[in-house]
Amino acid sequence: MTQNSVNPATGNDVSKGTATQMAKKLRLQYEADVGVFFAEIAKLPLDDLCKVLFELPSHIFEEAFSRIPHKKMATALSYLTSDDLTDFLQRVKQYDQHYAKSTYRLLAPDEQAEVTQLSQFPADQAGAYMQVEMLTAELTNTLSDVKQKVCTFRQEEPDSPIFKLFVLDAAQHLVAVLHFTDLLLFDDTDTMQEIMARAVVHHHKPLSVHTTTPIEKVIQLFEEYELSVIAVLNDEQQLQGRIVFENIYDLIRMQEQNQALKMAGASQDAEEESLGSARKARLHWLFINLAALLCAVFVVNIYKETIEHIVALAVLMPIVAALGGNVGNQAVTVTVRKIALGQIDWKNAFPVIKQEVMMGTINGMIMGAIVSVITFLWFQQALLGLVIAMAIMLNLAVAGLIGSMIPLLIKKLGGDPAIASPLLLTTATDAIGFFVFLALAEWILI
Amino acid sequence: MTQNSVNPATGNDVSKGTATQMAKKLRLQYEADVGVFFAEIAKLPLDDLCKVLFELPSHIFEEAFSRIPHKKMATALSYLTSDDLTDFLQRVKQYDQHYAKSTYRLLAPDEQAEVTQLSQFPADQAGAYMQVEMLTAELTNTLSDVKQKVCTFRQEEPDSPIFKLFVLDAAQHLVAVLHFTDLLLFDDTDTMQEIMARAVVHHHKPLSVHTTTPIEKVIQLFEEYELSVIAVLNDEQQLQGRIVFENIYDLIRMQEQNQALKMAGASQDAEEESLGSARKARLHWLFINLAALLCAVFVVNIYKETIEHIVALAVLMPIVAALGGNVGNQAVTVTVRKIALGQIDWKNAFPVIKQEVMMGTINGMIMGAIVSVITFLWFQQALLGLVIAMAIMLNLAVAGLIGSMIPLLIKKLGGDPAIASPLLLTTATDAIGFFVFLALAEWILI
Repeated sequence: MTQNSVNPATGNDVSKGTATQMAKKLRLQYEADVGVFFAEIAKLPLDDLCKVLFELPSHIFEEAFSRIPHKKMATALSYLTSDDLTDFLQRVKQYDQHYAKSTYRLLAPDEQAEVTQLSQFPADQAGAYMQVEMLTAELTNTLSDVKQKVCTFRQEEPDSPIFKLFVLDAAQHLVAVLHFTDLLLFDDTDTMQEIMARAVVHHHKPLSVHTTTPIEKVIQLFEEYELSVIAVLNDEQQLQGRIVFENIYDLIRMQEQNQALKMAGASQDAEEESLGSARKARLHWLFINLAALLCAVFVVNIYKETIEHIVALAVLMPIVAALGGNVGNQAVTVTVRKIALGQIDWKNAFPVIKQEVMMGTINGMIMGAIVSVITFLWFQQALLGLVIAMAIMLNLAVAGLIGSMIPLLIKKLGGDPAIASPLLLTTATDAIGFFVFLALAEWILI
Repeated sequence: MTQNSVNPATGNDVSKGTATQMAKKLRLQYEADVGVFFAEIAKLPLDDLCKVLFELPSHIFEEAFSRIPHKKMATALSYLTSDDLTDFLQRVKQYDQHYAKSTYRLLAPDEQAEVTQLSQFPADQAGAYMQVEMLTAELTNTLSDVKQKVCTFRQEEPDSPIFKLFVLDAAQHLVAVLHFTDLLLFDDTDTMQEIMARAVVHHHKPLSVHTTTPIEKVIQLFEEYELSVIAVLNDEQQLQGRIVFENIYDLIRMQEQNQALKMAGASQDAEEESLGSARKARLHWLFINLAALLCAVFVVNIYKETIEHIVALAVLMPIVAALGGNVGNQAVTVTVRKIALGQIDWKNAFPVIKQEVMMGTINGMIMGAIVSVITFLWFQQALLGLVIAMAIMLNLAVAGLIGSMIPLLIKKLGGDPAIASPLLLTTATDAIGFFVFLALAEWILI
């Protein structure tokens, strides 16, 4: 551990980084020689074991934990903070309920209580992300008491970083959140009460969340207030635990990736739950896609006779539709991002829509020119080349228009702009692409 | 400021949150009554002004700053930390070079020097994200000196949070990064040198990055080591500044959103640079899309005569292709996410690929059945219904297969799995969908 140590002061910085790197090394070993892999796992120090296992991909994780005796696992688990311990056991439970239960029974009573407490919160609530380890002081504590607490905390929870000191009243209500630089200037005999009275410290309620606060709201607070840690309270306003910023890194990533899944017509919750629910969530969007597709197909059906005359139209019509889909999707993605960043909304969207239409038109002229040359060389019909060039330019301009308008409209109507935009877009560009191309063809060529 | 204060200790937490909320309120005012908006802006306290302006969307930002006299702006800017000050001026420069220059000239000489230093780093390097404000101590400093430094720092930089103490040797080399809880237990007369010798502190080099370290690498270190702050050094290993975790929240979001843009064939850098470069970056992908589309069209061309016989095929073929594209895109997005989370790679991908093929097959059977009923009711041809049902089932199974394989293959070949996956996928599902449908039709119906 000393070798890779990052921060000479807090043990925490060290171990996580090392765990990630050890896990990477072990993964390569797993692929090269499973025997060596298990030998290495067996040799891992107890205080690193669970952290390293947790960083392994699912299929290796499953194999690795199941070979570790319950007793050894219980000891290794006790080196984790309460939130990580709960996470670890919940992950194990997904693969082997029996193993999780047997290991749980071997934990110390206070650890069992923590796991029971923390695992009661659903994954979308603040309580599920808090850890109960934290440094607290009461108003009557002296600075000297606090120093003693710091030493004890460091020894008992070497992996739990200390960010702030939570000051509580006699009924465990949160009174203040102090930074340690606040304490540097006081004497050992000063009580927290005195320090708060004399320091340049505001006396109103410090920021906190409730155990049932939606985790989305917690993430927002961390970002808006640039927090490193936040207190989590219960119904009686008593301090239950804290959420630290290292969880927020992961949560922000998840939030953004969830956005990507939504745009593709999948759902993160369903994907993580089971194969069946993932499939059903996706099927849902296929139905909507089909309903929309029937509109596009209806357009083609109108021009059935035109296609019968000039079958090259059937050959070429996917190009017009697909290029429109591509341009429209670019506009959708850029607009969804701008909405998410708070840069635009319905009222000030005009410049963005104008930009997208312009880009669609210019790129439409370029692509139209190229495709018309290809069409002419292929089918030897100058007019067909003209028709497809015009159709592509028109469809790409319209794709820019609706690609930027769809997310804005959905947002305006109170929906999630990511969730159905690409789907609605593709159908629209399909239908409009087919219509423009076939209508122009009928008008000019027949 | 006192009213909304979050953390009684560090001023920083307070101001950012309030700024976001003030900006939200101002934005509504801008839409309701521009006159009131400008009156409110004029009334903002100088230490909040720039923070609030920075949170406004682009079009309001542009109008708002240009009405503020240069001198007032220069004073307001001096309340920002060096990194925010540089960002602010660079953003202003995008709209009004002259305004930025005139304001820059009115800054204090040390602020000018900081802006010049920080704006020299390109946006993908650590140097561009560091702030020069930080608390440092030399080895010969006593704890009493440090306490004095804390007081001065707090006064001079009320908005710059103190996370750790950077200890330097006489040549400004970084020797240690101390947490303030490390200092609580020592006497005022102890020097840093003595504290480091006696404390449970490791004596090797603390973690740091170079000013030219890629920002991607910095984000990775923050996440792996769960850092709150990291030191930034120059070629001579001297401390230049620090990067704090609040920047990392934004950077992670940007990184993930960039992934979404890449998947749609757009580029974050190009989008943010200028309209022309955004359009060109997008055109690039339209070319590749066209090249791929020609393959799909080539397939349709083979079955030209079959279409001439049964024009309903031309009407229905977009359904087969589009449903395949939808299923394939769900598989691509889920797989890209699993790769990004490090859950799978080429060697252990089999279960994931199997899952996607199974989901595609089952959903394909369901959609195929529905579409065949619609087809039968519409065209009154039982065999045509059978053909489209088979084609949809086959195409959706194949879409699951290639949708999960494409990102894995690109990753295996050393590419970015996000960047071209949806594009390659759509063309493949188009081509295969057309082929399966038209080939089956020729075989069964003709």
